[in-house]
Amino acid sequence: MMPLPSFDDVLAAAARIAPHAHVTPVLRSRALDALAGCELHFKAEPLQRAGAFKFRGACNAVWALTEAQARHGVVTHSSGNHGAALALASRTRGIACHVVVPEGAVASKLAAIAGYGAVLHRCASTIAERERACAQLQRDTGATLVHPYADARVIAGQGTAALELLNETGPLDALVAPVGGGGLVSGCAIAAARLAPGCRVHAAEPAGADDTARSLAAGERRVDFVPDTICDGLRGSLGEPNFRLLQAHGVEVTVVDDEATVAAMRLLWQRLKLLVEPSSAIALAAVLARRDRFAGQRVGVVLSGGNVDLDALPWSPA
Amino acid sequence: MMPLPSFDDVLAAAARIAPHAHVTPVLRSRALDALAGCELHFKAEPLQRAGAFKFRGACNAVWALTEAQARHGVVTHSSGNHGAALALASRTRGIACHVVVPEGAVASKLAAIAGYGAVLHRCASTIAERERACAQLQRDTGATLVHPYADARVIAGQGTAALELLNETGPLDALVAPVGGGGLVSGCAIAAARLAPGCRVHAAEPAGADDTARSLAAGERRVDFVPDTICDGLRGSLGEPNFRLLQAHGVEVTVVDDEATVAAMRLLWQRLKLLVEPSSAIALAAVLARRDRFAGQRVGVVLSGGNVDLDALPWSPA
Repeated sequence: MMPLPSFDDVLAAAARIAPHAHVTPVLRSRALDALAGCELHFKAEPLQRAGAFKFRGACNAVWALTEAQARHGVVTHSSGNHGAALALASRTRGIACHVVVPEGAVASKLAAIAGYGAVLHRCASTIAERERACAQLQRDTGATLVHPYADARVIAGQGTAALELLNETGPLDALVAPVGGGGLVSGCAIAAARLAPGCRVHAAEPAGADDTARSLAAGERRVDFVPDTICDGLRGSLGEPNFRLLQAHGVEVTVVDDEATVAAMRLLWQRLKLLVEPSSAIALAAVLARRDRFAGQRVGVVLSGGNVDLDALPWSPA
Repeated sequence: MMPLPSFDDVLAAAARIAPHAHVTPVLRSRALDALAGCELHFKAEPLQRAGAFKFRGACNAVWALTEAQARHGVVTHSSGNHGAALALASRTRGIACHVVVPEGAVASKLAAIAGYGAVLHRCASTIAERERACAQLQRDTGATLVHPYADARVIAGQGTAALELLNETGPLDALVAPVGGGGLVSGCAIAAARLAPGCRVHAAEPAGADDTARSLAAGERRVDFVPDTICDGLRGSLGEPNFRLLQAHGVEVTVVDDEATVAAMRLLWQRLKLLVEPSSAIALAAVLARRDRFAGQRVGVVLSGGNVDLDALPWSPA
């Protein structure tokens, strides 16, 4: 099994990405506080480079490569944000980047990946097909695989989002982040455990891809499902190291349906003036769905990304 | 004629609003810099309280009232952002606020005004009707008129946006802001003249409400027009003190059609992840329309507000 990253790895990641990544602002809204009945501190990762927290993990992975590794570039599979992040991170180091993209990915995300200079390789949308295509590219090019979430360097990098948030807000009662493969929430759990020991970590998961909730309930990974959710960034299945970290840190999962996520997305656009994607808005939806659990508390919410296809908004004009 | 505000008035406004207003961030985008061929520094007023720079001027006016004046509250007419700003500013001081709103105003903006506790008074959309309704309310209630832009306290307050921007960026070669009644751009011109004497100030104006361009060309106010533009915040006519300030500071006007404004709005949403309204996006559209004028320069762009009606977006889904 892969060794799990530690808090020291998160600190090392923070130092490694500092020359390249933004320290994103923490936003507040009195109106949303009133609505939620608690004090919300939003970590604004849509303002991260390439528009999502994914740049943190990708950048850490790229700059952790040895010179010999770096010469052969990197490869990954991604429905969007990780691909764009790895493409941009590779550009910061001047190395090649190959991205395997599944059929049906969001057009604006593919354009971003190509725009950052990566080579796109299309494949069928099954996980088996993506992994096969990645393995073939590794063999052909000698590139290093940077998995979107089941990778210790990536997890440590994502944890820097919580590191920055807690450094700015001080101790929080709870921290909420979306879960797809689990890179973000597992990294954040590592940071929170050290910086705010009493802080509960919550994962917000779409009802149409609730493998994390089922896995934690069963005590073993349950990744046999066909995702059906508007949250295109959360359709992946929970990674193995991510599962172990969520178990170890007692992360709670709240399952949210797409309707609540879309309503939360509108609220965030209207109130924070921040373009968040559905896969981010789900974190606020989880808080609003469980007002009792968070009442009166200081709650950190990681808004993970803002890469929205403006031609396919999930609501009808009035 | 109304005495014009000075740089000292802008400084006094900054001190007066500091306990209530946000110091908004300055955002950058490498992609937009590349597209524009210059270095863009975006002052992010959608992140201001009530979602627009208007809170600055309204807050300065409300807190400049004497106790005796404040007891009778304030009154204004506004198609939206100024009304919401004055309502919220009044709430910070605990005084009454009356807002005369014209037929056809954006629904989400009216909801915001009411949500901040102001009393709405509807009237026909002509300027004469609005002014008549305001005058009647002043007589009935003793409230002080806080005009949306032809008011020295309001102009000085709006100037704090440029004060903060220039304090953060240092001297700029140019500063671009939208112009409707001229409160923002005239206040910014006052601040820029002192803090960055070589800095040219540009006003971006919709082709369907180009009274500022025509007034400056004619050397006298030309406010006889029926506005026809998507920029609902820029449909007012240039104020008299605003006209004098724009003349005095040699402000240049760039006229922009709505199509270019909508394209710029999409770019800002996609690249800055900031929900800007058309009346803000026009400032970037002006820069893109005159690439030669700004080539290689350091340019400040005031993104004035983010109050968009999400049910009435100005583009068709793909």
